[in-house]
Amino acid sequence: MSAYISKSVAAMEAYTPGEQPQDSEIVKLNTNENPYPPSPRVAEALRSFNAERLRLYPEPRNLAIRSRLAEIHGCTPEQVFVGNGSDEVLALATRAFVENDGTIGYFEPSYSLYPVLADIRGVPRRPVELGEDFAWRMPEGFRASLFLLTCPNAPTGIQYSRPTLQAFCRAFDGVVVIDEAYADFAADSFMDLAFAPGHANTLVMRTLSKSFSLAGLRLGYAVGPAPLIGAMQKIKDSYNLDMLSQSVALAALSDLAHMRTNVMRIQATRARLSDALRKRGWKVLPSETNFLFASPPGGDAKAVFDALRARKIFVRYFPGPRTGAYLRITIGTDAQTQALLHAI
Amino acid sequence: MSAYISKSVAAMEAYTPGEQPQDSEIVKLNTNENPYPPSPRVAEALRSFNAERLRLYPEPRNLAIRSRLAEIHGCTPEQVFVGNGSDEVLALATRAFVENDGTIGYFEPSYSLYPVLADIRGVPRRPVELGEDFAWRMPEGFRASLFLLTCPNAPTGIQYSRPTLQAFCRAFDGVVVIDEAYADFAADSFMDLAFAPGHANTLVMRTLSKSFSLAGLRLGYAVGPAPLIGAMQKIKDSYNLDMLSQSVALAALSDLAHMRTNVMRIQATRARLSDALRKRGWKVLPSETNFLFASPPGGDAKAVFDALRARKIFVRYFPGPRTGAYLRITIGTDAQTQALLHAI
Repeated sequence: MSAYISKSVAAMEAYTPGEQPQDSEIVKLNTNENPYPPSPRVAEALRSFNAERLRLYPEPRNLAIRSRLAEIHGCTPEQVFVGNGSDEVLALATRAFVENDGTIGYFEPSYSLYPVLADIRGVPRRPVELGEDFAWRMPEGFRASLFLLTCPNAPTGIQYSRPTLQAFCRAFDGVVVIDEAYADFAADSFMDLAFAPGHANTLVMRTLSKSFSLAGLRLGYAVGPAPLIGAMQKIKDSYNLDMLSQSVALAALSDLAHMRTNVMRIQATRARLSDALRKRGWKVLPSETNFLFASPPGGDAKAVFDALRARKIFVRYFPGPRTGAYLRITIGTDAQTQALLHAI
Repeated sequence: MSAYISKSVAAMEAYTPGEQPQDSEIVKLNTNENPYPPSPRVAEALRSFNAERLRLYPEPRNLAIRSRLAEIHGCTPEQVFVGNGSDEVLALATRAFVENDGTIGYFEPSYSLYPVLADIRGVPRRPVELGEDFAWRMPEGFRASLFLLTCPNAPTGIQYSRPTLQAFCRAFDGVVVIDEAYADFAADSFMDLAFAPGHANTLVMRTLSKSFSLAGLRLGYAVGPAPLIGAMQKIKDSYNLDMLSQSVALAALSDLAHMRTNVMRIQATRARLSDALRKRGWKVLPSETNFLFASPPGGDAKAVFDALRARKIFVRYFPGPRTGAYLRITIGTDAQTQALLHAI
C-alpha cells in the first residue's frame, strides 16, 4: 500500500455495487432497476439534442431541473438540490453536515453504502440494529451528526410509520436524510416533513433511477430547508450535471403519467409475485418498493440464489446473520416473473 | 446560518464559475471553451443510442473508457481514473491523499478552485506565490499533503520547464497532481512523469472539456501509479459516469484526428491574436493553452473588460494585485477574433 494514501481510505473496504452482467439472456432481478423503458420523451430529447452545444459548459446551478422539481413538489428551487445520482447527494451530505470529529448513523440492515460513506468521510460509524422482522428500533438518547435512513427501507422493503419518523426527526440533534428512493412504489411519502415546522434538520431524497426507469442517467435529488440545500450547493462540483443529463431529466420529469403507469404495473406484479411465493411456502416481507425481500422454505437462501443463477436468473443475496435467510428480488416484467416462478 | 452545517462549510466562499450567458449573440471568450464542435462521431453516438438502455445502471468501473485511455497513453487501465469532470477527480484527490490534519498546496495565481477545494476538505490552504511574470518559484522546504498544479498554468497560459517540474515532484513529500487540462495546446506534455521511476507520488490529469470540445459532457481523468488510482477508484461514487457520458466520451476518443485539427486551428488563431494585440501595445504572456493572458496598454483591464462586455464580447477578468492588469481571453474562431480586435 502506498504511503501517500490517507489511512482511513487505505483501511476501508469499497462499496460493492450489484453485478451488471452484459449477457442479455439473463433475467436481471438483482439491482432494483425498472423493467420498463423510460418515457418516449427521453429518446426524443436525445434525438433532438444538438451535439454542437456540448462544446459549452452546462448551466452550473441546475436551475431548470430544480425549478421543475420545485413545481412537482410544491416548493421553491432553493429547497431543491440535484446531484449526479443519489450517491453524490449522500456523499455531499456527509461533508456539509458532519464535522471532522462527527459521526454518521444508519440502521442495520439498510443501504450498504452508508457505512462506506462514513469510512470515506473518515468519521466513526454509528449503526443502529433494527428490531425483530426489521421493525424500527431506536435506542434512547441515540446521537450522531447525520442519520441516513432509507424509507421504505432497503433491502427489506418495509415502510416505517409516520408518527415514528416524525418524532425521531424532531428529537434528533443532527441532520436526518430520509432517502425515498422507492417512495413512488409506496402508499405514503414523507416528503412533507422536509417542509414542516420543527424539521429544520430534515432532508428527503428521491431518484430518477427506479420509478422513472433512468438508473443509467444518474440523477438524484434532495428537498428540504433552504439553508441545508444551500450548503450542499456550495460544495458540489461546479458543473455536477452534464448537459445531456439535464436535458434527459427534464424530458422525463415532463411525463409523470408514464412513470405512474409503470409504477402501477410494477405494484400489480409485486402483489402477484408475493402471493405466488407465499403459496410456495416463502416468507415474504410486506413491500412498499419495487422489490421483495423473501425467505425460501427452510431458509437456505444462498442455495436458491445459486440455483437461480445457474439458470441465468440474477437476484441479490446479502450474507450475514440478519439477511442471510432472504433474497432481494427486483420486480420485473410479467414474463420475467413467470420465468422466476418456473425456476423456483 | 443553520446550526446543522459544518463550521468550515458555513465559513467558506463557494467557487464562482465563469458566466454561462444564454444570449447566442454574445461572443463568448470567457470560459476557455473550444469554438469548434466536437467530432461528428459524438452526434452519431447520440443518434444511435438506445434510450431504453437507460433503465439499467451504467457499468460502474468505467472500464471501456479507461481501456481506451490506457491505449492512447500507453499504460494499463489500472493506471487510469475517470471522473465526472476534472472537478470530481480533484475533489477525490483531496479525500484520498489528505488526512484530516493535512494541508493542500497550490500556486497563486492558478486555478481559483484549488483554495475552495481545501476549504471543502476542511484543511488549511498552503498557497505559494509565483515569481515575477508568473514564473515558477518554490520556497525551500515547502511541505503539504497534496500539491495541485495546473500545467500549463491558468490563467497565465505559461508552461513550466520539465527539469523544474521533475525535480519538484521527486523532492516533494506529498502527492503532486499535474493538471494538464490545456496540454493538447502546448508544445510539451509531462504525462510521462506519471509513469516514471521515482514518481510514485505523481498524477497527471487531462480533460475532454477543452481540446475535445466537450465541456458540456463532464469528463476528466487522471493517470499515474496504480495504488493512487486505486485509492480514488475506491472512494468514487459507485456509478460516477452515466451511460450517455460513457458512450459519448468513447466516440470522441475514437477520433483523435478531429481533436488535433481543431487544436491546430486554435494554435494558429492564438499566434495571430497574440501578434495583433502586441501590435496594439498589449503585453501578451507566452501562451501554451487555448487562451491568452494579456494586459492592455495602460493596464486598466477592468475598463477594457467592461467596454467589451457592453459590446457583447465576454472575456474573463480576475481582480487582485497579481492579475488585475490582465484579461484572460479564450481563443475563439477567426470571426470571433476579428470581432474582438475590431472592438479593441
